[in-house]
Amino acid sequence: MNKAETIERLLPEIGSPRASGEHFAPSNIALCKYWGKRDAELNLPVNASLSVSLATLGTRTRVEPIDAEQDQVYLNGLLQAPDSRFADRTRRFIDLLRVNQPQLAFRVDTHNNIPTAAGLASSASGFAALTRALVEAFGLSLSPTEQSVLARLGSGSACRSLFDGFVEWQMGQREDGLDSHGVALPASWPQLCVGLVKVDAGEKPVDSRSGMQRTVETAHLYQSWPLQASSDLARLHEAIDSLDFALLGSVAEQNALSMHATMIASWPPLLYWQPQSVAMMQKVWQLRREGLALYFTMDAGPNLKLLFEAASRDAVLAQFPGIEVVEPFAAGAA
Amino acid sequence: MNKAETIERLLPEIGSPRASGEHFAPSNIALCKYWGKRDAELNLPVNASLSVSLATLGTRTRVEPIDAEQDQVYLNGLLQAPDSRFADRTRRFIDLLRVNQPQLAFRVDTHNNIPTAAGLASSASGFAALTRALVEAFGLSLSPTEQSVLARLGSGSACRSLFDGFVEWQMGQREDGLDSHGVALPASWPQLCVGLVKVDAGEKPVDSRSGMQRTVETAHLYQSWPLQASSDLARLHEAIDSLDFALLGSVAEQNALSMHATMIASWPPLLYWQPQSVAMMQKVWQLRREGLALYFTMDAGPNLKLLFEAASRDAVLAQFPGIEVVEPFAAGAA
Repeated sequence: MNKAETIERLLPEIGSPRASGEHFAPSNIALCKYWGKRDAELNLPVNASLSVSLATLGTRTRVEPIDAEQDQVYLNGLLQAPDSRFADRTRRFIDLLRVNQPQLAFRVDTHNNIPTAAGLASSASGFAALTRALVEAFGLSLSPTEQSVLARLGSGSACRSLFDGFVEWQMGQREDGLDSHGVALPASWPQLCVGLVKVDAGEKPVDSRSGMQRTVETAHLYQSWPLQASSDLARLHEAIDSLDFALLGSVAEQNALSMHATMIASWPPLLYWQPQSVAMMQKVWQLRREGLALYFTMDAGPNLKLLFEAASRDAVLAQFPGIEVVEPFAAGAA
Repeated sequence: MNKAETIERLLPEIGSPRASGEHFAPSNIALCKYWGKRDAELNLPVNASLSVSLATLGTRTRVEPIDAEQDQVYLNGLLQAPDSRFADRTRRFIDLLRVNQPQLAFRVDTHNNIPTAAGLASSASGFAALTRALVEAFGLSLSPTEQSVLARLGSGSACRSLFDGFVEWQMGQREDGLDSHGVALPASWPQLCVGLVKVDAGEKPVDSRSGMQRTVETAHLYQSWPLQASSDLARLHEAIDSLDFALLGSVAEQNALSMHATMIASWPPLLYWQPQSVAMMQKVWQLRREGLALYFTMDAGPNLKLLFEAASRDAVLAQFPGIEVVEPFAAGAA
């Protein structure tokens, strides 16, 4: 099954774009990670994952049909070279919707308000916002769930950025992936805070897509990852249902470390950590031993994302001055 | 099965010690790690392991029957408090041989010539040397293999320190562990060098025995460890048979990193690395990208042990001044 076939099932008929479209989609941080694909073409995951969307942090994208020979892709106001990775991924995603109208061209304006160097993937919010903007431009009748399926074809974790709050990406069973999409959980956690810590990254050694593939192919330990993820997912639901922060934090932290463990066990070794990452982990652990309810998660990069509740906010800020704090469920956020 | 029962099968009759005994045993560095016990009392491993002994680095131990109420245990010339961990482990090991003569007391003198802070476990060479010294003192007829079984009861990896060169610890199948012991491999690798790098350790967070237990109990990823170890063991034999250094180094490094990965995936997280450990790993990887055939292994601590061949010695020393280089197979060593 390829993407075009999925699109045919999802959207039997696609008309001409009738207008511009502009939408925002939030970044999301996974508490149970997406790590490994059962279908690389369709971004179908090996395991279900669970994230929290970051309210107003994310991507705003505007698309507009233009009279031109090719797409014009802007990122944060700058025209991207047609052969750049960003322009290429954008174009190939739009191709899915203009399969029968290859002459169509768009101007695409993408603005990320994600703090630089905080290690938040912009592809999730980016493809979610692009999906929404294109759906509007083409005047398509797609439910949020169907839009989540579409966004997943651009970047796996984008399917979670179609929703606010806690989102589970149900892995699904179907070969065409129509049942593999985000589902918003009917839960709220107003006290929950996410702290974005900057670690000077240097050059990212391997992009996360390649890293995922290397891990699956070379790390024997990866074989136990689905077991870890499935156990973590169940415990995260339990934590969310009972607002048990220690459980939420500990499961999210162990899940992230287990994901990094599978990378570390790969060959050649895949270590996204910097010396400073280790120093910060040790600091979190020390603060926890001293009684602070503080946990972290990490994605495929050197940055820590702190998890704590509003009651600990001052204590955390005193230890990590300069971090940006997001409240995913604050009034007006979700 | 407990230790006393193993001793009964190994040594149906133990006479009185007739003299003093004094012996040396080398440290060993595992290229495929011992990580996880199937029997905690008898130190029977989950997986077979393979090490190289460190020639003249290790422990020299002298035991002598004395007319006293209790053992007198010296470490590097200093009398140890009877309730210290070192004196306690020593006493309990000697107890195995004086089960019917509890009134016997010994003076035990242990000298390690292992560089301080290099992160070499002294328990392996220590229990191997103590075993040899006691076998002499009691006048026991035990083959090296039987001595290896006995040493294993003191510390698992001690069973490998009964031999020089490459040693495989065959895990065995028997419940009494009589088939779980070191076996010297009939191989030599005169060019092989081990470089001991010092990383300032700070306080070791968790001893390796407890760390092993926590990993087995809490890390889902541990379930795949035996698979990794078994694959690595086979590839190490292949590397040794063909003197393929790139294979030896890469297998040893991935094996060590996979062991650390299982710790990192434990809860609470078990990270023996310091920021400096990560910096050194990155340095090794960078040098390798530049063409230097340099690999590392690590045990349950922050130190790297470098693996290279004599031809690279000058290049390695230029990058890591001050390291101690051991040649396990140099003339006169093994």
